[in-house]
Amino acid sequence: MDENPPRLPLDGIRVIDLTRVLSGPFCTMMLGDMGAEVIKVETGEGDPIRSQGTLRDGFSWYYAAFNRNKKSVLLDLRSDDGRAALGRLIASADVLVDNFRPGVLAKMGFGKDRLNELNPRLVTAQVNGFGSTGPYVDRPAFDFIAQAMSGLMSVNGFAGGEPVRSAQPITDLVAGLYLAFGIVNALRARDLNGKGQHVEAAMVNGAISMMAYLASEYFVTGRLPQRTGNDHPLVAPYGLYKTADGEIAVAPSNDVILRKFLASLDLEHLLDDSRFDTNAKRFQRRAELHDLIDGALARDTSEAWIARINAAGVPCGRVQDIAQAFADPQVIAQEMAIDVDHPGHGAVRMLGFPVKLDGTPCTVRHPAPELGQHSEEVLASVGYSSEDVGRLKVR
Amino acid sequence: MDENPPRLPLDGIRVIDLTRVLSGPFCTMMLGDMGAEVIKVETGEGDPIRSQGTLRDGFSWYYAAFNRNKKSVLLDLRSDDGRAALGRLIASADVLVDNFRPGVLAKMGFGKDRLNELNPRLVTAQVNGFGSTGPYVDRPAFDFIAQAMSGLMSVNGFAGGEPVRSAQPITDLVAGLYLAFGIVNALRARDLNGKGQHVEAAMVNGAISMMAYLASEYFVTGRLPQRTGNDHPLVAPYGLYKTADGEIAVAPSNDVILRKFLASLDLEHLLDDSRFDTNAKRFQRRAELHDLIDGALARDTSEAWIARINAAGVPCGRVQDIAQAFADPQVIAQEMAIDVDHPGHGAVRMLGFPVKLDGTPCTVRHPAPELGQHSEEVLASVGYSSEDVGRLKVR
Repeated sequence: MDENPPRLPLDGIRVIDLTRVLSGPFCTMMLGDMGAEVIKVETGEGDPIRSQGTLRDGFSWYYAAFNRNKKSVLLDLRSDDGRAALGRLIASADVLVDNFRPGVLAKMGFGKDRLNELNPRLVTAQVNGFGSTGPYVDRPAFDFIAQAMSGLMSVNGFAGGEPVRSAQPITDLVAGLYLAFGIVNALRARDLNGKGQHVEAAMVNGAISMMAYLASEYFVTGRLPQRTGNDHPLVAPYGLYKTADGEIAVAPSNDVILRKFLASLDLEHLLDDSRFDTNAKRFQRRAELHDLIDGALARDTSEAWIARINAAGVPCGRVQDIAQAFADPQVIAQEMAIDVDHPGHGAVRMLGFPVKLDGTPCTVRHPAPELGQHSEEVLASVGYSSEDVGRLKVR
Repeated sequence: MDENPPRLPLDGIRVIDLTRVLSGPFCTMMLGDMGAEVIKVETGEGDPIRSQGTLRDGFSWYYAAFNRNKKSVLLDLRSDDGRAALGRLIASADVLVDNFRPGVLAKMGFGKDRLNELNPRLVTAQVNGFGSTGPYVDRPAFDFIAQAMSGLMSVNGFAGGEPVRSAQPITDLVAGLYLAFGIVNALRARDLNGKGQHVEAAMVNGAISMMAYLASEYFVTGRLPQRTGNDHPLVAPYGLYKTADGEIAVAPSNDVILRKFLASLDLEHLLDDSRFDTNAKRFQRRAELHDLIDGALARDTSEAWIARINAAGVPCGRVQDIAQAFADPQVIAQEMAIDVDHPGHGAVRMLGFPVKLDGTPCTVRHPAPELGQHSEEVLASVGYSSEDVGRLKVR
């Protein structure tokens, strides 16, 4: 038996986090969830997200949700003393993360050479909109624009309708996740090679990487994928169907599963019907087939059909709104919403951990910090006295 | 100067990959891109993706795109000999990944105890639909169903319209990415603790984790987010606007940027107009404001406006289809489409690398393998002779 709990994956890793709002803080939160000491360096009023979203008693739950497992240090990075303190923090760290536009960190006095001088083992990391080379390097970026330019919006939506964005800020989050993956890999490379390196992830690149077979099909055929709403671009039946009391999503992903689906509806005979006996025919007569399926489903409730169709081995479920999703017994069993006590602000509900490790599970070791809450503790770790800290904070 | 190139982040890591189609192969491809030796163990006709998508000369570009940097070993896992060979491979490995339903691997003879006996340092990993605990553990899963159940579809689409799925198979890919992140973390934890552990990522959990502020706002207010198409749920102006020759996406993310945007259109005076001088008023008169902006934009082309508005520091771009995205000079500069030579099949175009490391950049070290191409090489590494390999493959 171990006397001590196992060390978390990123135990002993210090991350200096200059990021703000969403993509960068999401990345560093994941590093914190895995055990890194994440030091959020803030200036002035701090990360703008602190005042975004609905506040409860002056506290943003949106901020809380993206900044658990971090410490906050307040520095004035426009002052020489503030930048000197940042230099000492960087010298003490394993990872430096920013989500400025490319070049901004260098203008602050922390170009590549200076960082290498401060800390040759440092992993530097940036999440940005378009990458740090190419004609758009200086453009400002935002999730909606990255969605538009990447091709992502062009395939979302209904045939004959407009392109539509993902309501989820998907390009921020995917880029943040890629960056976190890149950082942990760079740390392993450092273990092997003894050197740090620079890691980047860009919002447009991340969105493009989600194109999967849509990209492959475009590359091989030269044809553009079309918007098909909730229908599959190539396969029928597939989509949303009406039951006695609502709607269910069904996705029979191959012929074996299709047979099981139709059998569970007492419609297996359709596969021997000359109107529907190939996918090409079913696809062409999709509307007719849809009506036949709706007709069969009208005999019972969504709940009954979902149980029956899943039991037959066919993927099937409800379109749930967010309230239904968080009330779903499976989502509850997976602890995808957690309540975290924030001293002075009470319990804050936030998203749980999407990566489950059974030996070193993610936990909230500390809630999202107050602005500058850890200035003294962290700055003391790089040689500043309490008086120094007071001076650094007021400048 | 180094004589030798630096070692890749996952150099020396052997991954036994039992996954098929999309979520799992995407995960293991990322591990392969980072330098792991990924051994794709296939049975029968191999991964079904080999015959999915448009084939060119009998070869699937979809398969090629998700299986670069892997080796293929063909085994009959229904035979005792085949399973014994898999056991030897597992004993030689660092990571075992599957995307079966929970419990299937145990039924194949590789339950937790057996795996621990074979290899106590093994990191085991699974990507699945719903997680391995909870009432839906035995349900079949598919991207569309995970999108429906997670709440993701409920917020996508236009006000008054239907919920709409993301055309990208986002729940497969995000879960695969989370699993890859978890695996590399588990390898670091093994470096610290000497032990392997089990890692999981589920499609529904991954989709829920993308809810970001939509979840925070629901938790803090109890109100459901509404579908708002390409408009922002809280802020105006924001969205798609008409130019002389097309449409542009504009996202002024705060008051300073909004002023720059309106100034670049010679509409700055609107901020002093009592109809539009607060966000609340602009939001209420969104249609009217939209028309005023469209009127100003009608004076010039999309290209001219995009240059001018970006130069003013305001995020702005075109809605590009996939062809336009891959022809975009920025996307080309970032090498997000690459051509990979596949012996016997010619050059296959596929997506590039979304994570950029400057010291140990990702490359295609070998293209997607033929079925069983590496059986002999890999099985020799665990003690099988050429005759053994021939015997194992025919069974």
